[in-house]
Amino acid sequence: MELKHILPSDIEKESFRIIKQELDIMGKSISEDFEPTVIRAIHTTADFDYADTLVFSDNVIDKAKAAIQNGAHIVTDTNMTLAGINKKTLSRYGGEVHCFMADEDVSMMARQMQVTRAVVSMDKALKIDAPLIFAIGNAPTALIRLRELIDEKKLRPELIIGVPVGFVNVVEAKELILETDIPYIINRGRKGGSTVAAAICNSILYNMT
Amino acid sequence: MELKHILPSDIEKESFRIIKQELDIMGKSISEDFEPTVIRAIHTTADFDYADTLVFSDNVIDKAKAAIQNGAHIVTDTNMTLAGINKKTLSRYGGEVHCFMADEDVSMMARQMQVTRAVVSMDKALKIDAPLIFAIGNAPTALIRLRELIDEKKLRPELIIGVPVGFVNVVEAKELILETDIPYIINRGRKGGSTVAAAICNSILYNMT
Repeated sequence: MELKHILPSDIEKESFRIIKQELDIMGKSISEDFEPTVIRAIHTTADFDYADTLVFSDNVIDKAKAAIQNGAHIVTDTNMTLAGINKKTLSRYGGEVHCFMADEDVSMMARQMQVTRAVVSMDKALKIDAPLIFAIGNAPTALIRLRELIDEKKLRPELIIGVPVGFVNVVEAKELILETDIPYIINRGRKGGSTVAAAICNSILYNMT
Repeated sequence: MELKHILPSDIEKESFRIIKQELDIMGKSISEDFEPTVIRAIHTTADFDYADTLVFSDNVIDKAKAAIQNGAHIVTDTNMTLAGINKKTLSRYGGEVHCFMADEDVSMMARQMQVTRAVVSMDKALKIDAPLIFAIGNAPTALIRLRELIDEKKLRPELIIGVPVGFVNVVEAKELILETDIPYIINRGRKGGSTVAAAICNSILYNMT
């Protein structure tokens, strides 16, 4: 078995080099603005489909960075994404990450209303007194609820990262966000997940300067 | 936009039905023993490649359940997997989940030795006084270190879940575990990740009875 000998600090750099090289070979060119995000999503999944399915609204990276600089908080629908986001970097700008999915009041309300906890979590986020970025890695119902809140003018997020994964209403829920005028980073189709949501957040946080 | 109206409690069931149906259409038949694990990995990624690349040692599911019943602890190399594993179910049998990656002593030792924190974390796991299951979702260096510890007869885990994701030594590290006689669930190739590691653990925990 031939192992590469690479210093721990160089593993990520070498991985990014390999990803860029393979994207080149596949003839996929990605705009400079979006490249760090696409590469980090591929790095996190080893799935090159993300080069084709990630879609970005105009100037979304600049808008996301500005929101973070203005102290935006990130709301996510999964505790795994909460664990994965670089909270230290975010906190430098005054931001925090919130996940309400395991909260007792959310669980109770969801049972009463026969909706998912993700739906109730989106409503709970309205109480946060800061600009908001949503990073949805699991529940299409969260995106569907965000669309309703936006339509009802109860919410105007700085950015929606919409990468839930799955088989029921996932494709459709992403399209509902694409129809809005809210800045977005969406992975079209069924794929996504908590690690992809965290990777997208980190791709922005690691390139803040 | 046509959304399916499905009760929250039925979303997962419906997703599993769709996955099974599509596997059938693709002509992929999966042994009954391994089906819950393969389906949950696909559910977590929307990536049907896992039907082809997940490999299982003989009777590994029964062995994993027996280990959990005997109070096995799970050691993982990512805080996202730690967040994703159903710790309540595991604790019923006396088990706990450990992730040492963010520990100060691990970080210091890794810097001194110029190895990854994942390597040091595997060594730290030797101190746990319980049967051990490893769930590796990120670092191939963790699998390489596990192989060394096994070869040196310092460690004899009940199960290795080897699903790191990535581009540097990932394919090779998985093969190093496949050469041992330790029970394994490995995803061959580059793919895997924290969510897949957690999904595999949960597929066992949710089917304990």
